[in-house]
Amino acid sequence: MSSASLNEIRIVIDAMGGDYAPRNVIHGTLSALRETKNRFHVILVGKEKEIQQELQLVKGQNENLSIVHAEEILDMHDAPTSVLKSKRNSSISVGVVLQKEGKADAFVSAGNTGAVMSAGTLILGRIPGVSRPTIGAFFPTESGVSLLLDAGANVDSRPQHLYEFAIMGSIYANAMFGIQNPKVGLLNVGEEKTKGNEVALETHNLLSHSQLNFIGNVEGRDVLKGTADLVVCDGFVGNIILKFAESVPSFLKSKFKQYAETGTLKKLLIGSLRGTLRKVFKSLDYEEYGGVPLLGVNGVIIIGHGGSSAKAIKNMILKAEETVQKKINERITKAISEMNVETKIVPA
Amino acid sequence: MSSASLNEIRIVIDAMGGDYAPRNVIHGTLSALRETKNRFHVILVGKEKEIQQELQLVKGQNENLSIVHAEEILDMHDAPTSVLKSKRNSSISVGVVLQKEGKADAFVSAGNTGAVMSAGTLILGRIPGVSRPTIGAFFPTESGVSLLLDAGANVDSRPQHLYEFAIMGSIYANAMFGIQNPKVGLLNVGEEKTKGNEVALETHNLLSHSQLNFIGNVEGRDVLKGTADLVVCDGFVGNIILKFAESVPSFLKSKFKQYAETGTLKKLLIGSLRGTLRKVFKSLDYEEYGGVPLLGVNGVIIIGHGGSSAKAIKNMILKAEETVQKKINERITKAISEMNVETKIVPA
Repeated sequence: MSSASLNEIRIVIDAMGGDYAPRNVIHGTLSALRETKNRFHVILVGKEKEIQQELQLVKGQNENLSIVHAEEILDMHDAPTSVLKSKRNSSISVGVVLQKEGKADAFVSAGNTGAVMSAGTLILGRIPGVSRPTIGAFFPTESGVSLLLDAGANVDSRPQHLYEFAIMGSIYANAMFGIQNPKVGLLNVGEEKTKGNEVALETHNLLSHSQLNFIGNVEGRDVLKGTADLVVCDGFVGNIILKFAESVPSFLKSKFKQYAETGTLKKLLIGSLRGTLRKVFKSLDYEEYGGVPLLGVNGVIIIGHGGSSAKAIKNMILKAEETVQKKINERITKAISEMNVETKIVPA
Repeated sequence: MSSASLNEIRIVIDAMGGDYAPRNVIHGTLSALRETKNRFHVILVGKEKEIQQELQLVKGQNENLSIVHAEEILDMHDAPTSVLKSKRNSSISVGVVLQKEGKADAFVSAGNTGAVMSAGTLILGRIPGVSRPTIGAFFPTESGVSLLLDAGANVDSRPQHLYEFAIMGSIYANAMFGIQNPKVGLLNVGEEKTKGNEVALETHNLLSHSQLNFIGNVEGRDVLKGTADLVVCDGFVGNIILKFAESVPSFLKSKFKQYAETGTLKKLLIGSLRGTLRKVFKSLDYEEYGGVPLLGVNGVIIIGHGGSSAKAIKNMILKAEETVQKKINERITKAISEMNVETKIVPA
């Protein structure tokens, strides 16, 4: 492993993560370095021989690129906890350990999401005061993009957890989207504060008494409308709504196809519109936003889809650099420690 | 109130329910009667004078149509429980009482959903053995339509409630969609039976030991794919996913509009495709399916959107007739009584 120069950001990427690894990972890494004129250092973790072969194919040797060998591959069938057990020599475990040891600043993977979350939480540990790390998801909105927390890291979240998600998400949206005072909405079944399940009722109370820009409950219809910059919910509903949203493009494509089959003119028109449709569908594809953050761990972890393209990998690396630069974790640490003081004066 | 002939199905409709009442209600009612050649009897409940005026305008007098006066209107701002309190003379309360007294077989309303659910539950009572009535929602799928229970009547449902929703929904899907052995999916964050929150884990166990055609967990992406004929979930997530789905058309319209503005050719093409787009969007509009059922109450209740068109009202009335004819409630009563025997042998 060649050393990065002083002050240079070092990003570890899981070379074996994703359906098209290591090819897409390597191609994405090289374009990230090319586009930024080698602004940072990238460490590819995985089977060294396979990585070298792929690099030779594309003549991708670069002094800002180093390789750390990891013997094992953790795939979609492995249990998340195997990062600390049977697969501790996997690219995910070895990659996260590099960050733990201070040899890197961020870890990026398109591999097994559960395993990356486990590695992040178990190896890096949590930011002091954070009860549970949370994974974000980006939703396109009529006017931009919004962040949803939690997108599936936590089911059965308690109000305190949702409150922490709101704090972490507000900091993220402020730093990464440049929104001065991000609007926080609590995902619920009605706008009135008396609506919802027990967890929602209590969370509404906590958020109402916080320093956050809490705009109250938002409903399912508000997510794409962009009513809030940050939508807070339990990971059970967050994950279901995210996967539902991701399925909309293929549903629409199948419906458009059915209509196209009803006439040649329509077929022609739909054919000509294909580019536009693709763009609209793309705005529903969260991969475009460059991976999602795992917030609340003692480090920077960016997680991507298994089907990540080289472009998605590139975007994830750029997002990782930005997350390190903007000192998201330092800000979360500060805010969470202040929250603990605040919380004490909140009525139960 | 003129009497209906023997064996004729009698459907009460809330003439004051919905944003365009009584006009849309009366127009929808008249087309339902016209289309079916007066196959059933309709009782319009509401302010008699307003109803008469509207009927005169369209020369809608019909011997299969009668009016029952209700002095009050319960609107969207009234609390659901007001059906038994301050608004017991509302069209919703009076209409449901007609069914309770055996003077009608079904009640249809596009009014305040919460109030209609309350009236159904509190006035008609529950089918013996049903813990909580449930409201359904229809989702278009790539190949047809699926039913989701619960769409918002119950938050904080327990496993036993979800199990009952699965039984009621299976009977409904069998009778109304003509599916022999409806596939039941439990909405969850992963396919494996070890996934999900506590309620989902226990419900999976209950459904696995039932006589239902339980296909296991389904994810958010499976709803529009049509993996299951019946999707079972708590009303909190059901309501959020329903409202999210309903917002997709307006999100897409705004995106298409943005792209149309980028060039005249695209604008022309999109203009020509408007009809197709409208059809695709319509398949996302659950109102087209003729209102949703409130299952588990001792009677037939069909609930529609506040913005119901005359066509939606007509479809709701036809759906009410079909629900009565197919003896859904008798079948639910039988199945629920058998369930109670079954449940005892299910491990906890």
